[in-house]
Amino acid sequence: MVQDAGAMNCLMVIFGATGDLTSRKLVPALYHLEAKELLPKAFGVVAVARKKHNTDEYVASVRQQAEAHTRQTFEESVWNKLAGRFHYQSLEFDQGDQYESLKKKLDTLGEKTESSGNRLFYMAVSPEYFGTIVQHLKNHGIVNRKYGWQRMMIEKPFGRDAASARELNQTLRMVFEEEELFRIDHYLVKEMVQNLMTIRAANQIFEPTWNADHIDHVQIISTEMEGVGTRGAYYDQAGALRDMVQNHMLQMLALTAMEMPDYLTAENLRAEKVKILRSLVPFETEEMENRLVLGQYERYHNELKVAPDSTTETFAALKVFLDHPRWEGVPFFLITGKALAEKTAGIMIQYKLPMGSWSLRQTQQQLAPNRLIIQIQPQEGVVLSFNTKEPGTLNKLMAVNMDFCQNCLAGTNTPEAYEKLLLDAMKGDQSSFTHWDEVEASWIWIDQLISWAAAHPEAVKSYPKGSQGPAYEERLKHASALEEKEEK
Amino acid sequence: MVQDAGAMNCLMVIFGATGDLTSRKLVPALYHLEAKELLPKAFGVVAVARKKHNTDEYVASVRQQAEAHTRQTFEESVWNKLAGRFHYQSLEFDQGDQYESLKKKLDTLGEKTESSGNRLFYMAVSPEYFGTIVQHLKNHGIVNRKYGWQRMMIEKPFGRDAASARELNQTLRMVFEEEELFRIDHYLVKEMVQNLMTIRAANQIFEPTWNADHIDHVQIISTEMEGVGTRGAYYDQAGALRDMVQNHMLQMLALTAMEMPDYLTAENLRAEKVKILRSLVPFETEEMENRLVLGQYERYHNELKVAPDSTTETFAALKVFLDHPRWEGVPFFLITGKALAEKTAGIMIQYKLPMGSWSLRQTQQQLAPNRLIIQIQPQEGVVLSFNTKEPGTLNKLMAVNMDFCQNCLAGTNTPEAYEKLLLDAMKGDQSSFTHWDEVEASWIWIDQLISWAAAHPEAVKSYPKGSQGPAYEERLKHASALEEKEEK
Repeated sequence: MVQDAGAMNCLMVIFGATGDLTSRKLVPALYHLEAKELLPKAFGVVAVARKKHNTDEYVASVRQQAEAHTRQTFEESVWNKLAGRFHYQSLEFDQGDQYESLKKKLDTLGEKTESSGNRLFYMAVSPEYFGTIVQHLKNHGIVNRKYGWQRMMIEKPFGRDAASARELNQTLRMVFEEEELFRIDHYLVKEMVQNLMTIRAANQIFEPTWNADHIDHVQIISTEMEGVGTRGAYYDQAGALRDMVQNHMLQMLALTAMEMPDYLTAENLRAEKVKILRSLVPFETEEMENRLVLGQYERYHNELKVAPDSTTETFAALKVFLDHPRWEGVPFFLITGKALAEKTAGIMIQYKLPMGSWSLRQTQQQLAPNRLIIQIQPQEGVVLSFNTKEPGTLNKLMAVNMDFCQNCLAGTNTPEAYEKLLLDAMKGDQSSFTHWDEVEASWIWIDQLISWAAAHPEAVKSYPKGSQGPAYEERLKHASALEEKEEK
Repeated sequence: MVQDAGAMNCLMVIFGATGDLTSRKLVPALYHLEAKELLPKAFGVVAVARKKHNTDEYVASVRQQAEAHTRQTFEESVWNKLAGRFHYQSLEFDQGDQYESLKKKLDTLGEKTESSGNRLFYMAVSPEYFGTIVQHLKNHGIVNRKYGWQRMMIEKPFGRDAASARELNQTLRMVFEEEELFRIDHYLVKEMVQNLMTIRAANQIFEPTWNADHIDHVQIISTEMEGVGTRGAYYDQAGALRDMVQNHMLQMLALTAMEMPDYLTAENLRAEKVKILRSLVPFETEEMENRLVLGQYERYHNELKVAPDSTTETFAALKVFLDHPRWEGVPFFLITGKALAEKTAGIMIQYKLPMGSWSLRQTQQQLAPNRLIIQIQPQEGVVLSFNTKEPGTLNKLMAVNMDFCQNCLAGTNTPEAYEKLLLDAMKGDQSSFTHWDEVEASWIWIDQLISWAAAHPEAVKSYPKGSQGPAYEERLKHASALEEKEEK
């Protein structure tokens, strides 16, 4: 395929077009891309769902959500342009015969929109339909590389353990090549997660010190104030380990810990992440207590569609080591949970105490370690804490912060995750999507934790809503570098 | 001598008590120390000068200046307490017989104030009197260790070349031991100069990278907007190399470049600085052009007491190397001058480009080096510039600043240099005073430049007032690390 200006032209086929994800995320993202004139010239959207709509009805039905979720003022002219691209197709996902009409519609529209047969499929349905849909796409020849590229974007969850993920992947791979599969981890397109690699590699103050010689420990945090809300049915079957740790948390860990690729291609980048995910050290059963803390917020049982005796964890804190020369002995703490005191996500690099501070420490009890904090959300920025002399004293130390606030920058308008995801997929850039090898390695490692948790429901500790979660610091002993050392 | 609470009790003897320095700096500093109750319990000031004053007249004469130069509101009660400590003694410095009455006064007051004979002499006179005064102090037994410690504080200039400095030092050493000599370099007590050692040593992001492997070059800057003002007579005989480079600039260089002492004692600290000053690489005659840029501001000849044909430099920019393993090949740029565009002093550490940025550089032309800037005056603080990803781009780089503003801190009231100098001398702490070995090493190195400049008056280039000085960047090729490398 020639990479020309029209290489992005395509038909996007959304399965689950009447669902929440489509109206809250995909349609607003398309609206913003339209407003910024970033959509390809020849571009159509085939909205597929069960309901018996015609296109006008469908467009009317998603408009309200689109309006509610656009950041800029909603402009009639932009919406009309986008609405003109939509084509609704009703379909029972498990009814094979109905796929014929989908095929015909795509073929006709392909010619009409001059999208040259490029097709971007999007799974915005419940995972139980992934397999069925893919098989029917294959059986009816809807995935057809003769006329252009064929790509599949797929939402989490990608399986619920290594076995089911493998099964799902095999199903997908019956129809799509790895290069055609765009597994979404929307943390990977967050501005500051993408920035992480730049910050560590492009700065001489960080690059040569990004290792076990200089770094004491790393904390990766993603917390929410909200509970499970309307997602109880899904979440109660998943829990924090599956919902957050297996994907987002381990991806952030991988980006933090990986070697920098020689050349920045999607292939090289994902290969480096895989190496880290494969280097995750399994937890020995006897050390689980000091490696894994699980929690469930109070009155979680009262949430909609949550089992009354559920022991699903809504909080997880882990102390992880890597079998990797760069990170020998450096603990990575992963902390995530719902119904906590604060909504925040970030990566904190805590440095060791410097050798050269020895002479300063002789007269001083307190020397704070340097900390580099990469703030991911809601604040986007970088904070660096370092030691200076307290003014007016001989050499009394004082830790102070320097910060760079990215979302304070005038004119900065961080694009929404889904805008970038859609554009990247149209461009065929897999950098911000997870390779199967990454998904598999993550599942293999997390499976042991999930199995252990399932066998130890008593390990899930209750915690009050709006708290810091169950007491985990003492158990994981991450608070200070010294404690860590004493432990060894 | 027992180090008890009264160890600071003393009589301070100021020679040149009716001069500018005394009224503008010393008396206000004493006022502030009095206000903060930091003066010793038993403390008296013997003000010595030529004029035939009595104490009341003298106190009245310095009061106005003290009032004008106090930062806080002038309080009558504080002033009265301080004024009560003053005793005026008129003296012709070169009339030996007059020293007898000084001796008597000190002996009497020593008993009266219970200052136990501790004596802090202060040379606030023109350097031509240093020798005479010291000899008379000795001849009349005014320096008398039988009753307590005897110390001498001495202002710059300490000589005008290595030979005259040695002569002055020998004169002083006939009476005072090195441990009793407090040679003032008021840059050494500036908050951020003192902070420099803390910042480099107490932070793991800086300590292991403080060397030629990671640092590309260092810039040390001290510029003024004012011309020579009323100091033409002195300055025209000195010039920037003697007035600024030999002392302040080289001291900042020494603190930046030295090894950290094992124990933070004045002795160890000064010994480490000496090593750096002795490692300064002399300039070869044939490379002077690319190592030393001299300038004189336009209409300098019109200044009061400046020779009409003066070729004195009011600007100097130097590119200096150290014969030192930590700094192999790292240039230190010293830049100082009068009548320039900006009043500023600071130390800028420019890092090399990181190796790990290689993959980023493949798609990027511009990668800015990290810079750590220690702002000394008028702003006190730390600025760190580093690279991040420009929001909304794949990996386009953007250099941003983080800063810590020390004099923005609420409640911070940086003490004036002279308050600290006086207190340190009373305590006997020589950390912020220069050792003879430092002074000598600086003069030996700078002498070659001064001699060359004297023989090459045409090397002094005219520059407009309020400019950046004569063009020096191109000649010294310090602007970028790459240019530096090409040059080698």
